[in-house]
Amino acid sequence: MFDLTLIGIGTGNPDHLTLQAIKAINQAQVILIPRKGEGKADLAELRLAICRDVLTNPATRIVEFDLPVRDETILDYKARVEDWHDRIAAVWSAAIGDAARVALLVWGDPSLYDSTLRIAARLVPDERVTVVPGVTSIHALTAAHGIALNEIGAPFVVTTGRRLRDEGFPAGVDTAVVMLDGECSFQSIDPAGVTIWWGAYVGMAEQVIVAGPLSEVGARIVSLRAAERARHGWIMDIYLLRRG
Amino acid sequence: MFDLTLIGIGTGNPDHLTLQAIKAINQAQVILIPRKGEGKADLAELRLAICRDVLTNPATRIVEFDLPVRDETILDYKARVEDWHDRIAAVWSAAIGDAARVALLVWGDPSLYDSTLRIAARLVPDERVTVVPGVTSIHALTAAHGIALNEIGAPFVVTTGRRLRDEGFPAGVDTAVVMLDGECSFQSIDPAGVTIWWGAYVGMAEQVIVAGPLSEVGARIVSLRAAERARHGWIMDIYLLRRG
Ligand SMILES: C[S@@+](CC[C@H](N)C(=O)[O-])C[C@H]1O[C@@H](n2cnc3c(N)ncnc32)[C@H](O)[C@@H]1O
Ligand SMILES: C[S@@+](CC[C@H](N)C(=O)[O-])C[C@H]1O[C@@H](n2cnc3c(N)ncnc32)[C@H](O)[C@@H]1O
Repeated sequence: MFDLTLIGIGTGNPDHLTLQAIKAINQAQVILIPRKGEGKADLAELRLAICRDVLTNPATRIVEFDLPVRDETILDYKARVEDWHDRIAAVWSAAIGDAARVALLVWGDPSLYDSTLRIAARLVPDERVTVVPGVTSIHALTAAHGIALNEIGAPFVVTTGRRLRDEGFPAGVDTAVVMLDGECSFQSIDPAGVTIWWGAYVGMAEQVIVAGPLSEVGARIVSLRAAERARHGWIMDIYLLRRG
Repeated sequence: MFDLTLIGIGTGNPDHLTLQAIKAINQAQVILIPRKGEGKADLAELRLAICRDVLTNPATRIVEFDLPVRDETILDYKARVEDWHDRIAAVWSAAIGDAARVALLVWGDPSLYDSTLRIAARLVPDERVTVVPGVTSIHALTAAHGIALNEIGAPFVVTTGRRLRDEGFPAGVDTAVVMLDGECSFQSIDPAGVTIWWGAYVGMAEQVIVAGPLSEVGARIVSLRAAERARHGWIMDIYLLRRG
């Protein structure tokens, strides 16, 4: 039995770390860090560097682990993810050994499009899990552009690239934030009257941002995204769409 | 002419401060802090304490200002807010004097239901405004409950108490976060199949949270909220509703 802290570390800028995150890092006996697995060696290295920068407790050990790959022979999507999460939990277990206080660094905020909480539930009862909130890529995006997320008193939706493609601009709102989009899904909606604020690597040294009417800047974003992706070998991007 | 930095400070836990926020606080010549005005003296004091705790630059001055009150003789809502923002901008201007680097501390994240960016636009061109993202009350809420914000790959809406009352549970999503709700507007929706995760003063020493089926815990939240509000003289609360 161990206590597990999921620590939101922000979106790649080491200065996104909160004082609470730094304290939590230094209270852990073991900090688990994925070796890469995301196909993003830069990010694994970055997480390690963030950790080392603020670690002052000599008793804290950083333990790297290899993230298992998904078993593509399991055809059902849900079953494949469940199996994957089971195997990640098993790898964590082995890496943790008999440590009593364990921490995991989570990109951005642990509640936002992240499965760490769901995997943790396989190993630890709820009351032994602590979450440290972090700066999300949504707010790193709005900060980079210097814009408000919502219009005064108005609602907004946060959604994924797949949903935008399947369902179009969300109903009932004029503002949508789109994450987890591998294919510039804004191309699938009618650009008339829509403004986009796009950003890749937001908050990081590699940050690139573009804003303007979707009809005017959409194509530029598509080609810029491809070029940046080729240059760095990976990309993470996010955007806000506003209509009217 | 001056440079203005809007610094997200998180939602009341001094440890929500990021390293970026601390650096920005120490780079300012003048830090503007509202004296109270929100009718929340505790919060004004808290902001001051947060600032003093991390301020190491002897050249930085903290300047408090009195937030003007809204002119209730202006009947049109939009016009009343515009006038109010104009007058806040004028008060800032006077408080800033001839400082070249000015900072404002913003509760949570500056992009989320906050007018500081809109007021700033009255005084400073966009390119002289810098935003430092912060931990929001949304993520302080999910962290307090140890829950995921979204279901896997699913969208969510962030909205206000007024919208929930006027429009019901938002269309097209199963998860809604409700902010700026002075009157427990969850009472206006059909509670069948809806779970609520509610929190007041989240992240703060006063934090109280309640979770459960809305039909079972709704009434308890209403009375708890009234009691907490009476006890502290003010309240800030937020909740997540999930159906199905
Ligand atoms: C698995 S989700 C994790 C989100 C994270 N928990 C957060 O709070 O931002 C990954 C998605 O977040 C977005 N994202 C995360 N970091 C980003 C960054 N630095 N720049 C742009 N987008 C980012 C992208 O949309 C990416 O597809
Ligand atoms: C004017 S908005 C500002 C939101 C802020 N910019 C943020 O990022 O959270 C104020 C609303 O935020 C929510 N809120 C802010 N801080 C909170 C806290 N510590 N606990 C609960 N709700 C909070 C409440 O819904 C409140 O009505």
